[in-house]
Amino acid sequence: MTYDSNNVFAKILRHEIPNKTVYEDDFVLAFYDINPKAKIHVLVIPKGEYINFQDMLDHASQNEIDGFLKGIFATIKALNLTDGYRLVFNTGRDAGQEVPHLHAHILAGEKLSADHL
Amino acid sequence: MTYDSNNVFAKILRHEIPNKTVYEDDFVLAFYDINPKAKIHVLVIPKGEYINFQDMLDHASQNEIDGFLKGIFATIKALNLTDGYRLVFNTGRDAGQEVPHLHAHILAGEKLSADHL
Repeated sequence: MTYDSNNVFAKILRHEIPNKTVYEDDFVLAFYDINPKAKIHVLVIPKGEYINFQDMLDHASQNEIDGFLKGIFATIKALNLTDGYRLVFNTGRDAGQEVPHLHAHILAGEKLSADHL
Repeated sequence: MTYDSNNVFAKILRHEIPNKTVYEDDFVLAFYDINPKAKIHVLVIPKGEYINFQDMLDHASQNEIDGFLKGIFATIKALNLTDGYRLVFNTGRDAGQEVPHLHAHILAGEKLSADHL
C-alpha cells in the first residue's frame, strides 16, 4: 500500500484544509476531530507520511518515532486531562480506519464507553 | 501515584496467576484478556513497573520504550490480523483503566464498534 498524498490529513498538513490546532511541533500536528466521538476528541498526526503505526515503525527514524510519542503526550498535557483519557490507533478495515495517514485519537472529557473499549 | 506490586498484571508477570500467552520477549508479555471485548482481545504489558504510558515515557529507558512498541507489533504479527485491529491505551478514571500496570489492548477479529472508538 502506497501513501496517498491526497488524503485529508495530508491536505491539513499542507494548510489546504483548515484545522483547530491544539498542539504543534516539528514532528506532530494535533487538532480537534470535526466529528467528535466524545466531549474531547483530538487527533495527533505525525508530519511524516505514514499510513499506520506499523508503517512508521518500519520506515521512520528513531527521532520521528520519539517525536510522535512525545507529541502525543505533549498534546495530552496541553489538554490538562486530569480525569484520564483513551488513546486509540485504528488500523485497517475491522477497526474502521478512515484516513490512510497515521493518527492517534485522544478521547476524554467524560466517562468513556467500555463497548469495544 | 506509586506502583502497586500487588496488581493482577504484576502477579501474572511473577507467574502467581496463569495466563494464555500469545507472545513474550525480554520486554513484554502478551496474553488473552480473560474478559474479551471482541473476538480477539489481547493485552500487551511491559515487564517494567509502569502505571501508564506517560509513566513509562517519564521513567523508562529508550530501550524499554522501543521494546514495548516492538513487542506490541510483534504480538500483532503473531496474531496475523490481516483485516486490521484497534490498539488502545486507557489511562485513569474516565477511560476505565482497571489495572494500574501499563497495558495495550489489541482488539480484532470482527468489525469493531465506532462508539467511543
